[in-house]
Amino acid sequence: MRHASLLPSASVAALLLGASTLSACTEGTATGQTSSTRTEASAPAPAPLFNATIEKLRQQIDTRMADGVPVPVPADAGGGYTHEQHKLNGTTIYNAGMLYRVTGEQKYRDFATDILLDYAELYPTLDLHPQVRPSTPSRLFWQGLNEAVWLVYAIQGYEAIRGDIDAEAREEIESQLIRPMADFLSEGSPQTFDRIHNHGTWSAAAVGMTGYVIDDEDMVEKALLGLDRSGEAGFLRQIDLLFSPDGYYAEGPYYQRYALMPFVLFADAIHRNDPDRDIFAYRDEVLLKAIRSTVQLSYAGRFFPINDAIREKGLDTAELHYGLAIAYDLTEDPSLLSIIQQQDTVVPTQAGHKAAQAIAAGKAEPFPFRTLKLRDGAEGDNGALMILRSEEDEDNAAVVFKATSQGLGHGHFDRLGLLYFDNGNEIVADYGAARFLNVEPKNGGRYLPENDSWAKQTVAHNTLVVDESSQFGADWKLGEEHAPRILAFNDTPGASYAAAEIGTAHEGVDLQRALALVDREGEGHFVIDIFRAQSDGSHSYDLPVHFKGQLIETSLPFDHATRNLAPLGEDAGYQHLWKTAKAEEVPAGSLNDLSILIEDRFYTMNFLVDAPMTAVLTRLGANDPNNNLRSEQALILRSEAETATYFSAYQAHGVYDNSRELTVYDGGTVENLSRTTIDGVDIFELSEANGKAIRLLFAQTLAPSMDHSIELDGETINWTGPVHLVRTSDDATAPSSTSPTSGDEQ
Amino acid sequence: MRHASLLPSASVAALLLGASTLSACTEGTATGQTSSTRTEASAPAPAPLFNATIEKLRQQIDTRMADGVPVPVPADAGGGYTHEQHKLNGTTIYNAGMLYRVTGEQKYRDFATDILLDYAELYPTLDLHPQVRPSTPSRLFWQGLNEAVWLVYAIQGYEAIRGDIDAEAREEIESQLIRPMADFLSEGSPQTFDRIHNHGTWSAAAVGMTGYVIDDEDMVEKALLGLDRSGEAGFLRQIDLLFSPDGYYAEGPYYQRYALMPFVLFADAIHRNDPDRDIFAYRDEVLLKAIRSTVQLSYAGRFFPINDAIREKGLDTAELHYGLAIAYDLTEDPSLLSIIQQQDTVVPTQAGHKAAQAIAAGKAEPFPFRTLKLRDGAEGDNGALMILRSEEDEDNAAVVFKATSQGLGHGHFDRLGLLYFDNGNEIVADYGAARFLNVEPKNGGRYLPENDSWAKQTVAHNTLVVDESSQFGADWKLGEEHAPRILAFNDTPGASYAAAEIGTAHEGVDLQRALALVDREGEGHFVIDIFRAQSDGSHSYDLPVHFKGQLIETSLPFDHATRNLAPLGEDAGYQHLWKTAKAEEVPAGSLNDLSILIEDRFYTMNFLVDAPMTAVLTRLGANDPNNNLRSEQALILRSEAETATYFSAYQAHGVYDNSRELTVYDGGTVENLSRTTIDGVDIFELSEANGKAIRLLFAQTLAPSMDHSIELDGETINWTGPVHLVRTSDDATAPSSTSPTSGDEQ
Repeated sequence: MRHASLLPSASVAALLLGASTLSACTEGTATGQTSSTRTEASAPAPAPLFNATIEKLRQQIDTRMADGVPVPVPADAGGGYTHEQHKLNGTTIYNAGMLYRVTGEQKYRDFATDILLDYAELYPTLDLHPQVRPSTPSRLFWQGLNEAVWLVYAIQGYEAIRGDIDAEAREEIESQLIRPMADFLSEGSPQTFDRIHNHGTWSAAAVGMTGYVIDDEDMVEKALLGLDRSGEAGFLRQIDLLFSPDGYYAEGPYYQRYALMPFVLFADAIHRNDPDRDIFAYRDEVLLKAIRSTVQLSYAGRFFPINDAIREKGLDTAELHYGLAIAYDLTEDPSLLSIIQQQDTVVPTQAGHKAAQAIAAGKAEPFPFRTLKLRDGAEGDNGALMILRSEEDEDNAAVVFKATSQGLGHGHFDRLGLLYFDNGNEIVADYGAARFLNVEPKNGGRYLPENDSWAKQTVAHNTLVVDESSQFGADWKLGEEHAPRILAFNDTPGASYAAAEIGTAHEGVDLQRALALVDREGEGHFVIDIFRAQSDGSHSYDLPVHFKGQLIETSLPFDHATRNLAPLGEDAGYQHLWKTAKAEEVPAGSLNDLSILIEDRFYTMNFLVDAPMTAVLTRLGANDPNNNLRSEQALILRSEAETATYFSAYQAHGVYDNSRELTVYDGGTVENLSRTTIDGVDIFELSEANGKAIRLLFAQTLAPSMDHSIELDGETINWTGPVHLVRTSDDATAPSSTSPTSGDEQ
Repeated sequence: MRHASLLPSASVAALLLGASTLSACTEGTATGQTSSTRTEASAPAPAPLFNATIEKLRQQIDTRMADGVPVPVPADAGGGYTHEQHKLNGTTIYNAGMLYRVTGEQKYRDFATDILLDYAELYPTLDLHPQVRPSTPSRLFWQGLNEAVWLVYAIQGYEAIRGDIDAEAREEIESQLIRPMADFLSEGSPQTFDRIHNHGTWSAAAVGMTGYVIDDEDMVEKALLGLDRSGEAGFLRQIDLLFSPDGYYAEGPYYQRYALMPFVLFADAIHRNDPDRDIFAYRDEVLLKAIRSTVQLSYAGRFFPINDAIREKGLDTAELHYGLAIAYDLTEDPSLLSIIQQQDTVVPTQAGHKAAQAIAAGKAEPFPFRTLKLRDGAEGDNGALMILRSEEDEDNAAVVFKATSQGLGHGHFDRLGLLYFDNGNEIVADYGAARFLNVEPKNGGRYLPENDSWAKQTVAHNTLVVDESSQFGADWKLGEEHAPRILAFNDTPGASYAAAEIGTAHEGVDLQRALALVDREGEGHFVIDIFRAQSDGSHSYDLPVHFKGQLIETSLPFDHATRNLAPLGEDAGYQHLWKTAKAEEVPAGSLNDLSILIEDRFYTMNFLVDAPMTAVLTRLGANDPNNNLRSEQALILRSEAETATYFSAYQAHGVYDNSRELTVYDGGTVENLSRTTIDGVDIFELSEANGKAIRLLFAQTLAPSMDHSIELDGETINWTGPVHLVRTSDDATAPSSTSPTSGDEQ
């Protein structure tokens, strides 16, 4: 290990140069430089976004300097005064340090020093926090996580000033605050520090980054390899286990962006101090993959709201500011710049400065949102999240197929779930978490009771519900033991598809789903959805479709509850659904449709169920005494059978443009849906009035390497694996079929 | 009258110069000009928005030229094939003419000529349309309105080519099509042509503009003064009667923007051909006022959705493209340019070109959205629409006080209604119309039955409902006879208010409302709402608050219907409301609150009712067998009394920022609401914890010229009229009071 700072001094020089440009900008000629000398110096490339960031920070920190910084004795739990004050002070130390590095102004150095000295006075006097959670010891905060996050910020601020403060202050800060806190977070909290968990990552980052700054190799070693330096715990092990080989984090994107932060910050420190470790190349560049996959896991700027997600969270989240700047610094991938542009801010570091320069130089390129399979699990064998996209444009259609693992305690019981986005909107949606983050009257800002009673339940998702119960009996630890099997994934542009299967979610029932996204040559697209449920015993199967928008028309003979509403069921989430309409005795095999309007586009769902069916419309809100739930609608297709197959097709079509007063609505172009079986292969065919057809072939045998060959319309079609997609047109050309599928076991 | 074209030839020259720049741009050196000759010419100022518009038009028209233009024998009613085809052809003639004028390319002239000749062949063969509506004769379309609109477009296109086509074609077009159609719309349709109504305006515009183009003074006279040239009908009379002196159109903004179009187009033609008429100065510039007021009647780009409004309609509507370009051409008011910028397109005329040049030259300034009283009625004495705005920024708070006349058959029974917008969002909302424009399965795209049964009813609005019935017994002709009386209007920035009264909406009940918008010095604002109902007999009074967002907390002891929902009432709109929660026996004079979250801001309503009260929460959707209604929530405050006074205060506060994970929520700063009466003046006081207070003084006697003087906290306060607003602070300075109010009868 060489002795190095978190930021190499060459970069500091570059920044200071940039900074003098900045201060010249904002302070006129007060620096004493004449404009000619400035012109003669080799001027750095402009970085207006960086300068704007620094100006905002300057205003914030100047205000804090004027107001004074209280360092209160810890008393409150999360959200309380002392909690919020200490959080704020941690980022203030960071920001003051960054400002000092960029501007060279001593007042920022002195300000950071003074706050740190106040903490150096307070910290040794502290016992455990009065409201400490026993499982997670801490002193400044009620839980160790906050303490680790505090140190991650503070140590970066401290690093920026450390070389320029007097030895006495340095000794005081390190011996009374920094070192004791790092020791407390490591040796003093083994149950967190050695845990393979996001909280452990924050502790490792805090301790490891501290080790680099105060030149304590031992600390760094513990952070990397665990307290016993065996490598069974520590940062490297966390990288091994917490991300899948594709950079997917099992809890889903909402937690992924949070988990990412300590990984990228500590990795960045390792990269700069121990470049020989080549940390960003570690495990086939999994950290860079994780940064990219976090971006991929979004639509129209917001993360897919799967699992316990706050739906408003998106690409503008602070954690991703660091990740993208660091990833750009390493890779110079211009597509990352367009996401930074959307964020409209950069981090106040050398990496942020470089990204801002590149943006100003016009280097940004669109981020390639792609059809993608993100395998789940440390080994990549715990299912996958599969994303089908119509084009490389975030505002176009995206289908999310959730065939992942449980995702620990924040996971939902939604195996084989579907989300469908188009035109910048949710079309078929996931509820996300039932939570108002930090809104005190809403259960203290924590997860609401309805998160368990509704949001996690299977019926709250777009996947089949068996016997009005949730998958795995709503036991997440049981769910943790089973993941779906991926049957197929094909990313052919305009004709992508994916399939998965799970037999363990409901005892004795095998669930299989295939989803395809098929472009219609510039006239919208179809989403094809096949759901097969197979069992030896009779079950009730409910397929919920949580659609958005306004219902326009439906062929289902709904009888609307006009005078009285009652809940649809008793538990497993059904108790929260008002049953607003019911269509009974829909014959097996009948073609039905339902059309909705969402913003300026229509969506028509056609569906065919091979068993007699009852359809209900629901409205969320029953048994919700505190108005905790949003009022959302759903269609539920219910059949009672041993095996049932649901064949649905969503078509985006038409226009509803009130600016031009242009309405184009014709109910879509689907003429028929049919299912036939030839040689053990179910052939699901969607045919249009213009003679074109899409056929999704789904073998009844799921063996991934089985070769299939069937005759269709006089053509022989050959493929391997359970799923295949064929498009036919009305002219006499041969059907175009997509390339062989790739399943789990290729 | 001098002989002149719709567009003066000087302007045409300028446009053609611009056009050659444009075609040089898009066709390279194909024009044969060398770049040096172009440089030597005095180049017109750039107008990229205009060029982009022309390019879009060129693509559209080139496509139509390639596809061919069917001119079918009329058969279908609105929405049908021949109807839509003829509409399209009318705008094609217009666009081809504009393209010819701008580019000078003969193919566009010939294209327009050919279509017109096809119509000249068809038109003489036509009897009345097979599906004609007897009240409105027409030949190409099922109703005369469409025929007039068609001619308005076609005559402008024809004017652009008329001087450059051969005499034979000109004779054919004028004798077989243009003149017969104009005659048919005037002499042949006296019931429409002489009617003081929007349809009459379109006819007058079509006939008058035709008169200018074919140089028929008689036609112009009829259009201006009516068939008998008495001035009892015709365009000038329409201007006299259809707009209020402030440029308000009684049906409200949704219809105002539509009605505006023939006014501005014909007025523009008059201005250019008969400049001595000074038509835009006519009636104190009422047409320019109408254009400006149309913009004022919007929030965040959309029109206030009062009366039968399609909510999506906003400032980007095509009609306003013409109005703004023409108004800018006349006034060169740079604030109009910012609205044109938002529209992101201009009209393909000289005025559009000029506006685009000005935008490119950076002349645009923000439009001054203002606190404003727009009087209603031809004489300005039929009530008013009053808008209170917190700042001159369309994204800040706006309160709309609907104290207007009925607004004919499209009016709603919502006298004294409130709309409240803030932060770009609706906070307390109007349902708008129950209609999906031109969506065939939704009642043929016409108004839905629920427009009458719900959207027009009083309970669908934020105004007091007496005895669960609608104002005027939901009889719009009766409503047409009565308008509210304006009691006060004050536009003091940061402390604006308005008040109105109506005693005729419900027999024996006088309704009085005062609304104030009071800024909190950079920390949000309050909306103060006083509603007094006075009667000699006992009534049930319901104050609905149609709030948006998610309910966060409330002091009301609601008992939620968790197992069963029933409608709130039987008719007058109540049959559509599910009663989701009820709080009974709320004591008279108790202070209650309800807080909601809308996007990233919280809103807390505090309220005090001087009678015992029941509060209910409702959800729209009962008795809606076709899912025609949106699912919206409301709070209804119900008291049974002879007189009742509702004192409500809305406060915008706090932050819910999921990007920064920052939540600031404290329930607002209101400490108390109180009502006292001194010397016949009700004093409504809102006091904050910081000692500041807002007092709205509302005299029980409503005489507009009465002087008042009362003692408050040892200060004497003097004012004239029924309403006065006083702010006090905790320091010992004198209260600041706003200037005297101005009522109807000043």
